[in-house]
Amino acid sequence: MKKLTTEEMGRMSVEEFRESEKLPLTVVLDNVRSLNNIGSVFRTSDAFRVEHIALCGITATPPHREIHKTALGAEDSVEWSYHEDAAECVRGLKEKDYRIHAVEIAHDSIKLDAMTQLRNNALKIALVFGNEIEGVQESVMELCDGALEIPQYGTKHSLNVSCAAAIAIWELSKLMRQ
Amino acid sequence: MKKLTTEEMGRMSVEEFRESEKLPLTVVLDNVRSLNNIGSVFRTSDAFRVEHIALCGITATPPHREIHKTALGAEDSVEWSYHEDAAECVRGLKEKDYRIHAVEIAHDSIKLDAMTQLRNNALKIALVFGNEIEGVQESVMELCDGALEIPQYGTKHSLNVSCAAAIAIWELSKLMRQ
Repeated sequence: MKKLTTEEMGRMSVEEFRESEKLPLTVVLDNVRSLNNIGSVFRTSDAFRVEHIALCGITATPPHREIHKTALGAEDSVEWSYHEDAAECVRGLKEKDYRIHAVEIAHDSIKLDAMTQLRNNALKIALVFGNEIEGVQESVMELCDGALEIPQYGTKHSLNVSCAAAIAIWELSKLMRQ
Repeated sequence: MKKLTTEEMGRMSVEEFRESEKLPLTVVLDNVRSLNNIGSVFRTSDAFRVEHIALCGITATPPHREIHKTALGAEDSVEWSYHEDAAECVRGLKEKDYRIHAVEIAHDSIKLDAMTQLRNNALKIALVFGNEIEGVQESVMELCDGALEIPQYGTKHSLNVSCAAAIAIWELSKLMRQ
């Protein structure tokens, strides 16, 4: 097996990215504390052409040296906005006809691997990821149309937020590109 | 939407985890430098009941305060071993009839979302993840049965290694549990 060089990969430029068609998928980060996690979510969102990241509450914003360490420039390609209040941000998305899913383990949550019909139900989707300890705030949960659960089989109660975001964005990206 | 409490999730104990049936999936980390990434891979491996993590080369081993920060105890549940030479580790896995896939973008790599028949081809699988900058070493690539590519559509050449591992382990976990 011979690896491709970066030239052979032929990735797009930041300018081309900005003009390219995006997934109708917005990622909402509700009080994410770790700069490492924020940067990683930017990098993953670049990879799957997420249209927008809404940074809410204590979630730090670019430009930031520590975000850059894991975003590696993806903070310049992916469009973002800052909102002091995540609930207000989610209300705004609902007004724009987004279907809002918290990535959480909740009563009546839908398993991520059972979510085959999402594409038919809604064209515009927002995924909400919460704080590393507290998860998504109750006041934001109340506004969500549903919760998506990543089925887990081990000892821990949750995944790292950047890993959960990677899995959920990957899965949505597959469904939305079908 | 009402979140489940940690009690309601009813996760297993470390002892129950050790005795539980695992996925026949081994994760090989080849010269992964970031302790944060190593810990995250432990946490993801716990969530999907990966049977073993092989830490190779410069990849640090538990117990380590910085690995614990992201593993959060998963370094105690998931079985691991250390190998100075990743190539030797991979040769050992091949002798035990593992099918070895580097998670890399290579000539003739298989797209992760096209990998529907893997379960039929091999019962025991090893996924190799490389260094944050260099990727999987050429000497290890040569030993692999195939390369798995996570299709990407943005400006960056790769994902964060812990995010790539999360996506690949999630996808393999779904296929192997079918």
